[in-house]
Amino acid sequence: MPNASIRGRVTPQSPIRKLVPLADAAKARGIKVYHLNIGQPDIETPEVALNAIRNIDRSILEYSPSEGYLSFREKLVKYYKEIGIKLKPEEILITAGGSEAVLFAFLSCLNPGDEIIVPEPAYANYLSFAVSAGVFIKPIPTHIESSFALPSVDEFEKYIGPRTKGILICNPNNPTGYVYSAEEMKTLEHLIKKYDLYLFSDEVYREFIYTEEPYISACHLKGVQDNVILIDSVSKRYSECGIRIGALITKNKKVREIVLKLCQARLSPPLIGQIAAEASLDTPKDYLKAVNVEYKKRRDCLVDGLNKIEGVFTPVPSGAFYTVVKLPVKDAEDFCKWMLSDFSYKGETIMMAPANGFYITEGLGKDEVRLAYVLNCEELKKAIKVLEMGLKAYNKR
Amino acid sequence: MPNASIRGRVTPQSPIRKLVPLADAAKARGIKVYHLNIGQPDIETPEVALNAIRNIDRSILEYSPSEGYLSFREKLVKYYKEIGIKLKPEEILITAGGSEAVLFAFLSCLNPGDEIIVPEPAYANYLSFAVSAGVFIKPIPTHIESSFALPSVDEFEKYIGPRTKGILICNPNNPTGYVYSAEEMKTLEHLIKKYDLYLFSDEVYREFIYTEEPYISACHLKGVQDNVILIDSVSKRYSECGIRIGALITKNKKVREIVLKLCQARLSPPLIGQIAAEASLDTPKDYLKAVNVEYKKRRDCLVDGLNKIEGVFTPVPSGAFYTVVKLPVKDAEDFCKWMLSDFSYKGETIMMAPANGFYITEGLGKDEVRLAYVLNCEELKKAIKVLEMGLKAYNKR
Repeated sequence: MPNASIRGRVTPQSPIRKLVPLADAAKARGIKVYHLNIGQPDIETPEVALNAIRNIDRSILEYSPSEGYLSFREKLVKYYKEIGIKLKPEEILITAGGSEAVLFAFLSCLNPGDEIIVPEPAYANYLSFAVSAGVFIKPIPTHIESSFALPSVDEFEKYIGPRTKGILICNPNNPTGYVYSAEEMKTLEHLIKKYDLYLFSDEVYREFIYTEEPYISACHLKGVQDNVILIDSVSKRYSECGIRIGALITKNKKVREIVLKLCQARLSPPLIGQIAAEASLDTPKDYLKAVNVEYKKRRDCLVDGLNKIEGVFTPVPSGAFYTVVKLPVKDAEDFCKWMLSDFSYKGETIMMAPANGFYITEGLGKDEVRLAYVLNCEELKKAIKVLEMGLKAYNKR
Repeated sequence: MPNASIRGRVTPQSPIRKLVPLADAAKARGIKVYHLNIGQPDIETPEVALNAIRNIDRSILEYSPSEGYLSFREKLVKYYKEIGIKLKPEEILITAGGSEAVLFAFLSCLNPGDEIIVPEPAYANYLSFAVSAGVFIKPIPTHIESSFALPSVDEFEKYIGPRTKGILICNPNNPTGYVYSAEEMKTLEHLIKKYDLYLFSDEVYREFIYTEEPYISACHLKGVQDNVILIDSVSKRYSECGIRIGALITKNKKVREIVLKLCQARLSPPLIGQIAAEASLDTPKDYLKAVNVEYKKRRDCLVDGLNKIEGVFTPVPSGAFYTVVKLPVKDAEDFCKWMLSDFSYKGETIMMAPANGFYITEGLGKDEVRLAYVLNCEELKKAIKVLEMGLKAYNKR
């Protein structure tokens, strides 16, 4: 048998995956499992998107343009204009989810061996795409005690070396829920200008923000427009994650020319997903407002409940639908497994994501988990109770 | 401005793309353009697939499993069983079209710097995926005079070096329409066994065959099951190219583990496309039979018509819906451009794909074009007449 590739073998696999068989086994034993481990919202997809699919009026489901339908990109131009980002349709390239946008960003901007700095904890799949593209992620630690705020310029400069070609941020952040302040975005602006770096900004959670502070997108920064690569997802915004529609956006013409070639090589983004996504842009504004009100309620419910448990701490996240939680355990991964394999309270248990999977530096985040507040408050309260009882039992063993 | 990546800059762009503005300009002048340049069939998508989309009964368009729905893969197992390929559902991984399957095959089996041998002319996008994966394509020439048959074992062995890790075939072939014989498949079996190479077999046109000879899939070969990586497309088969549903299939467990990690990193394949593709598998068998009858008629019509033009030669392709044609011109790319920019006959012209874009070796295929018979016979006949008149006028200039 020929050898599988080395890069394939070093591609990481999220520790959540190891827990799936344990959760399945718990369910098989009749235990109810609260899923706080995933980013799949329970919010309904807008009716207008579902109707666009149901009313599909074509006899051939043919290739769409490699860069996405022009009508769709024109509607996105209007969306971005409303949030103070001025774009032309050709500056938007439609991708198969934000995921493909990340891969295309790496392939088009970075050479094999190049490095990018990523604040950790970070979305675990960045590392997989980096391995595919042969680039290295240099993690810069952020800390739960300071709510995962961005390190200072001085601290960043220690990490910038001759092979550093960019900084990647996720804002609002997955897994921490942190939203970068105007001052922190200024720090990034300064750094990418001074060292002529790319700023890869993953803003797929942009519409999920629970603070009154104005949101600063990487596209709002001044004098660095050729350095900014925006990664976005339409499908995430409208609870239609399955349709896989995202976008790579940049004013940098040279990068765009390359991304377009990558788009052409894979022929086209998903057709029906684009039809749904384009229709979604007509969703009444009340929809996202109501979604935000609901998530804010859940966040408060989760954060308050968690911080009341002895030895548990989580900061108050301002965005996305995740929070990282410090637990009074030595090995959160073991605790997450144990909760599924050995524990239940009133016939219920919870599935959590061990946070070590979001840290690139070995050994960090061992006493942390990521929780997603994708359940309603009533269920969240029950889940918090299960966690509290579980911690007691685990530490008494 | 930071530099765009080198690999991005060397990613090739199909010469067809350069012709698009010329075709648009011709249309703007009121000229009818016959599109013989593309692989977008005019065959209607099966009603059963369209209905599955129209009747979608979900309130959340959520992520599907990274490897694709089990129910879908189980149905594919039945499809493959009917063509003599015995599979388990876990040996099938659903991808975003055959395109993603090619990229994942390269990333999971090959290290940067590895080489694969590909008979040329070849599907142009293989080269783009190879650049993305940092692997090299070593082309082995096939010739129009011998209908693009596979070279002999001796010839192949000249191309196998220390970095050679695999052979990639497209069968039935795009761009040539050639279908590999049982004997040729034996040659490949011998080679991959002797040198322990991967055989990447792109069989997306498997259902489009116009010969009575039995079709030999790479999965029918004996004693090499861990070496074979099958690339397939469901959406191509049912004229639903836009939904982007393909598959990577292999018995090789180590490779599958890696492909699964790549699948997980990009979260999931398109949801609605999968629903359509799964339903498509229930398409009455008459559909594919009728499609084949139609394509065979078109092929005969095109091939007969072309070979009657002085100085023009095309072999009789046994599969897919393409044929490569030798023209009595020195520079087919220039001729293709000229046909769009300077020529029309009775207000009509044709768009063709210059074949040099399908050859990796510089200078080959300069007097060849690829024609797709994705138009009905009546239109094909008119297009052939336009070509005949165009050649006369071009060579008289």
